[in-house]
Amino acid sequence: MLTYSPCARDGNSNGEAAKLGCRVLTLADRLAKHSESTDGLTCTFMTPAHRATAAELLVLMVEAGMMVEEDVVGNVIGRYPAARHNAATLIIASHYDTVRNAGKYDGRLGILAGIVVVEELRRRNVSLPFHVDVVGFSEEEGVRFSTPFIGSAAMAGRFNEAVLNQRDAEGCSLGEALRQTGGDAASIAAIRRPSPLLGYVEVHIEQGPVLLHNGLPLGIVSAIAGLERYHVKIRGVAGHAGTVPMSLRHDAAAAAAEIIALVEQRCSSVPGLMGTVGQLQVPNGAINVIPALCELSLDVRAGEKHALAAAVADILTGIGAVARRRGVTVETEKLVETAPTPCSPRLQKALAAAVARQGVAVRHLVSGAGHDAIMFGGLTDIGMLFVRCGNGGVSHSPLETITAEDADLAVRALFDFLINFESG
Amino acid sequence: MLTYSPCARDGNSNGEAAKLGCRVLTLADRLAKHSESTDGLTCTFMTPAHRATAAELLVLMVEAGMMVEEDVVGNVIGRYPAARHNAATLIIASHYDTVRNAGKYDGRLGILAGIVVVEELRRRNVSLPFHVDVVGFSEEEGVRFSTPFIGSAAMAGRFNEAVLNQRDAEGCSLGEALRQTGGDAASIAAIRRPSPLLGYVEVHIEQGPVLLHNGLPLGIVSAIAGLERYHVKIRGVAGHAGTVPMSLRHDAAAAAAEIIALVEQRCSSVPGLMGTVGQLQVPNGAINVIPALCELSLDVRAGEKHALAAAVADILTGIGAVARRRGVTVETEKLVETAPTPCSPRLQKALAAAVARQGVAVRHLVSGAGHDAIMFGGLTDIGMLFVRCGNGGVSHSPLETITAEDADLAVRALFDFLINFESG
Repeated sequence: MLTYSPCARDGNSNGEAAKLGCRVLTLADRLAKHSESTDGLTCTFMTPAHRATAAELLVLMVEAGMMVEEDVVGNVIGRYPAARHNAATLIIASHYDTVRNAGKYDGRLGILAGIVVVEELRRRNVSLPFHVDVVGFSEEEGVRFSTPFIGSAAMAGRFNEAVLNQRDAEGCSLGEALRQTGGDAASIAAIRRPSPLLGYVEVHIEQGPVLLHNGLPLGIVSAIAGLERYHVKIRGVAGHAGTVPMSLRHDAAAAAAEIIALVEQRCSSVPGLMGTVGQLQVPNGAINVIPALCELSLDVRAGEKHALAAAVADILTGIGAVARRRGVTVETEKLVETAPTPCSPRLQKALAAAVARQGVAVRHLVSGAGHDAIMFGGLTDIGMLFVRCGNGGVSHSPLETITAEDADLAVRALFDFLINFESG
Repeated sequence: MLTYSPCARDGNSNGEAAKLGCRVLTLADRLAKHSESTDGLTCTFMTPAHRATAAELLVLMVEAGMMVEEDVVGNVIGRYPAARHNAATLIIASHYDTVRNAGKYDGRLGILAGIVVVEELRRRNVSLPFHVDVVGFSEEEGVRFSTPFIGSAAMAGRFNEAVLNQRDAEGCSLGEALRQTGGDAASIAAIRRPSPLLGYVEVHIEQGPVLLHNGLPLGIVSAIAGLERYHVKIRGVAGHAGTVPMSLRHDAAAAAAEIIALVEQRCSSVPGLMGTVGQLQVPNGAINVIPALCELSLDVRAGEKHALAAAVADILTGIGAVARRRGVTVETEKLVETAPTPCSPRLQKALAAAVARQGVAVRHLVSGAGHDAIMFGGLTDIGMLFVRCGNGGVSHSPLETITAEDADLAVRALFDFLINFESG
């Protein structure tokens, strides 16, 4: 069980040990006060709570001595400038929108770590040979308009203007929601990312149990997993549960069971590979009828594209073999395919060195969840630093938690990374 | 593919080869004209179609020279009397109600085979040393009042008067539906079955593929399977499909898959044992969430009570082992338990001899479905003769079919059985 150490956040001034981490947690609490709901935290794109959160972030950035701006999709940007005006820029970013009934750290930790690092750089009068742009992206979760990465896609020049027609549950389109900021297709396309770019670094909670399980506060992300998703429909032959001998059955649920076991076995064979059957149903199943139909979803992820392709190929081949052997038919429909986004070896190495200098054992891990960093993959070097979650690694939940000590280590590692980063 | 031979039923008079079988099919067609629906056959308890079917059966019985009566739950009884008034009685029976959108032979075949046999006995002036009571039970399927075996339970003295309060979909109680026949608790309890009873014989379509698969028109039922039914609820731990490594999961659906495989494997190990997971669901499953809950149904059947108990015990033990190994919890709730009903060795032997005399290889098989015969188990010797179904063995469907030749063999075997039956 991880618990918070006493710190200024609790009105206790003797918590010098994790001062920067306490600052992060205090600021996360402050941001979480802006919510669409009276209990719990919900902050979806372009709602009043979301606008208030952006304003709060801009205030924090100004107070930290940054030059600030907000772009037309609501991204807030604070610059800690290099001495030289035409220096290259390093982006430190994550998102400030949330899922419904969210935790306080998903996304926000990465922005606040950037702000607190800049506060510390300012306090120590550190001058860097590159600009540091701390960015709070306005949208990553895809909750309101069923479109994720609105903020980071816009800054990365990857915004698809077709999504302006996406509507929320009340029928309001994304285009309409952006009128208050002047965000139309042309102004979004005109958003300029800093240039030249040195790299993109994102601090994020792990949203999983690996670091917790391994007793490590921090981890270096080696890649953001790619994924393939399928809908699988198995058609067997209905029959009476009492009159069709086992040997004469073509049971769709039994075929599904074998497929689930196959997915689990194949994906357990390679570290960093994950396979999940999250949806499973015999539609209108009856207790005394052999299932004629069973539907399931398949989600396979890996940090390395060949590992992903090989796993999917093996699973699809295995499904075909199950179908032939059992005399059932299987339709597989590919729903989504995204390639893995590798993190830059150079940034991994620099982050690992910074982590090691905090006295923390270096662990590389694949991020199974998507992050804003994906949008910058291919545009610049990307790097991600994961911070341990408590409560079994739960995220997207009010149970999401991190400790002040771990947040402190994250900020110190980021600070260390910045002051040692070779910009040349 | 089984096809009808040409016979009188098709207006073709050269079908002498399967004359009695054609007569059965013709009468089944005639009964099927009384339906609650304009297309397809539906005949549920005490509806106008059901009453018309009873009247049609009574007419057929009268025309066959039987003494007829209808009891207060709608059972129709036709007696082909022995010369001696106080002779014992052999019951030949099945039910005339149907499921919704039913086939024409489920239940009715057994009544019509009895009537056609009596027609033949009468034609040949055969006198038997025992009364033959051909009975059409009014209810077996349990469709309208969710209570099966109303007719046979009443005649067997096993009617549970509590079910008089069962209501149909329109809110009409069974008690109210029985008012037109004067069927109240007292009059139902007063229904007397023939005494002394020699035995109970039921001819029925197999409702399964075993005879079809083995190329046999007839089969001797060795027992009506007992069954145990369970609802199984598996609770695992939800998690993100991309962030929880395979080794740290407690996946409820993966546990369910293992349980389904276990049920299939255990029940495939013993002939006559059957295990079915007909209901299977991850409630509100999401494609990217490791299932925290999976629910499934379990239906295990066997013709022999020790085989049933051993299979259920092994499956429940196996479920416990899966739960412990995977760190999930499993609740199993027993829904139904019925003991197997063995068929009398004496009647099996006599029916087998009659079948063999038709030139048909003798095959014994377990009935996995329930039948009216169950109600007479323990009261008298019971015997069942199964007739091959076409179309893969489908029943409870308009696709249900039998051939005139098979029906003919069934009637001839029943005739042969009666004239050779040792009543002493």
